[in-house]
Amino acid sequence: MRVMVIGAAGMIGRKLVEKLALDSEALGRGIEQLTLVDVIEPPIPAGLASISHALAADLADEGVAASLIASRPDVIFHLAAIVSGEAEADFDKGYRINLDGTRSLFDAIRNEAKQEPYRPRLIFASSIAVFGEPFPEKIGDEFFTTPLTSYGTQKAISELLLADYSRRGIFDGIGIRLPTICIRPGKPNKAASGFFSNILREPLSGLEAVLPVDDTVRHWFASPRAAVGFFVHAARMDTSRIGPRRTLTMPGLSALVGEEIEALGRIAGPKAVKLIRREPDAVIRKIVSGWATDFDARRARELGFVAETDFDEIIRIHIEDELGGKVWHG
Amino acid sequence: MRVMVIGAAGMIGRKLVEKLALDSEALGRGIEQLTLVDVIEPPIPAGLASISHALAADLADEGVAASLIASRPDVIFHLAAIVSGEAEADFDKGYRINLDGTRSLFDAIRNEAKQEPYRPRLIFASSIAVFGEPFPEKIGDEFFTTPLTSYGTQKAISELLLADYSRRGIFDGIGIRLPTICIRPGKPNKAASGFFSNILREPLSGLEAVLPVDDTVRHWFASPRAAVGFFVHAARMDTSRIGPRRTLTMPGLSALVGEEIEALGRIAGPKAVKLIRREPDAVIRKIVSGWATDFDARRARELGFVAETDFDEIIRIHIEDELGGKVWHG
Repeated sequence: MRVMVIGAAGMIGRKLVEKLALDSEALGRGIEQLTLVDVIEPPIPAGLASISHALAADLADEGVAASLIASRPDVIFHLAAIVSGEAEADFDKGYRINLDGTRSLFDAIRNEAKQEPYRPRLIFASSIAVFGEPFPEKIGDEFFTTPLTSYGTQKAISELLLADYSRRGIFDGIGIRLPTICIRPGKPNKAASGFFSNILREPLSGLEAVLPVDDTVRHWFASPRAAVGFFVHAARMDTSRIGPRRTLTMPGLSALVGEEIEALGRIAGPKAVKLIRREPDAVIRKIVSGWATDFDARRARELGFVAETDFDEIIRIHIEDELGGKVWHG
Repeated sequence: MRVMVIGAAGMIGRKLVEKLALDSEALGRGIEQLTLVDVIEPPIPAGLASISHALAADLADEGVAASLIASRPDVIFHLAAIVSGEAEADFDKGYRINLDGTRSLFDAIRNEAKQEPYRPRLIFASSIAVFGEPFPEKIGDEFFTTPLTSYGTQKAISELLLADYSRRGIFDGIGIRLPTICIRPGKPNKAASGFFSNILREPLSGLEAVLPVDDTVRHWFASPRAAVGFFVHAARMDTSRIGPRRTLTMPGLSALVGEEIEALGRIAGPKAVKLIRREPDAVIRKIVSGWATDFDARRARELGFVAETDFDEIIRIHIEDELGGKVWHG
């Protein structure tokens, strides 16, 4: 089978490709060709070098989508996007990449099928940013999408296109609304959501982290491993069970910041917990207060998508996948 | 105030313009300039000839939106669309007119404001086709949009754009999800929904009409006069009360086909009712069974939008507005 990952240099993209390299049958059939695309040339995993090629290309540029699709991949993971803050700061760029780029890809598939029959599986990374407050404490699968950012708008529009193109048989699309990924590997970043990961990742390595909100803040999480699992499952699953509503809110863990910290204490001890420095930040507190805190996600669970059920598990996954099993205990 | 009606040759567009001609203060302030646009040159109402001009133009054509917006209208009614059946039959045309045309208009407003400040009121005609079954018996204001046609998809996407552009202050947008308009004036047409009007309009003039479904079919209605009222109210209302959720399901009347016929009997007598010929049509029955039958529409009601509450009223409006007060009684 031929597989294409668009957005392969991002965190989830890289982890997905690593998974395919480790487990060649992850998608159910062997991979004969792997094409990795991003605006910067994505890394090729050692184990797949002979069947992989990496391309630096922008989906929104004229002709790029058509040339990518000319190789007729059987499975396409579309993870490429500019992030929320950038899409908000740069109106034109946000719409160009996150909406027009996605539509170019969809139309390229439609055009390719005019030559000879072609209907790939297409897995699209959406976001819970399609929801905007006020919302119920637990957001159900039938709640409306009223984004309060241009990023969320672009994702919600892409979800609608995904459903219509799938309904018309142009491709077999599945939209995956990801929870906030925790623990994000790497360094602390400036995203408003960064602290959810920072307060675990840094102490687990003996480093300080800043907590800008109260312990009583609730949020919605899944590990990077769970996220990769969502995409792999979406590529393999029987889509005849989905029906025309093609985007699914993924399962996740609804937890308090205080529960994150308790789990850290259980696993890494009190010295690790002491590395969390409380520095209330009114701006971040306000941003976070507008985010959804819990979802029902019943449809996705019934369709076989699985996430973590407590923070101990999320932390253990990070220790296994990122720290080689080693934790700092002070 | 300068007013522009895009889609002015359609049924609602013409009735809206007639209303503005009859009541020059309908929008709260006098109209100094009225621009009427459609793909065919729309008629200019006699009373407004001195301040009106009519244009045949396609919003989706290069440069059209910018040249329209160069006149900086204060209020823009955007009613232009190709209908559901055509958007389904012609994928490219549907997306070009109903999505790209709308986005061109929105972007033209954004670009115009780069010269000097400009933020018009923009009223967009959406549709209950944004909903797709299965849905609850009564659809609430927070139910998700999962269209089952490309037309509904294009309307749902336009609603998202309307909200994002309004949130960013580019224009002051309101989306109006219209019920099925009944009684549509004119001749019977081939739209699957045509019979809802045909079975009243034709007998009221002594003509036969075909009923292809059972009397127990329930649907969602408002008169043409109510529809014009929605647009006029949206142009005048205080939008600070709306918040970021810019599209509203309009109020309407949920009624059975049997209730339509009973009202016809009360107003026009048994001979009129006898002009309805029952010819069950499995295709139309199937299409109609997928349509929503009732809505809560609480938000729109609270914001002052008003529709009819029984079919007698809907029929009387038709008699007043279309038949000069005269009804055929056999």
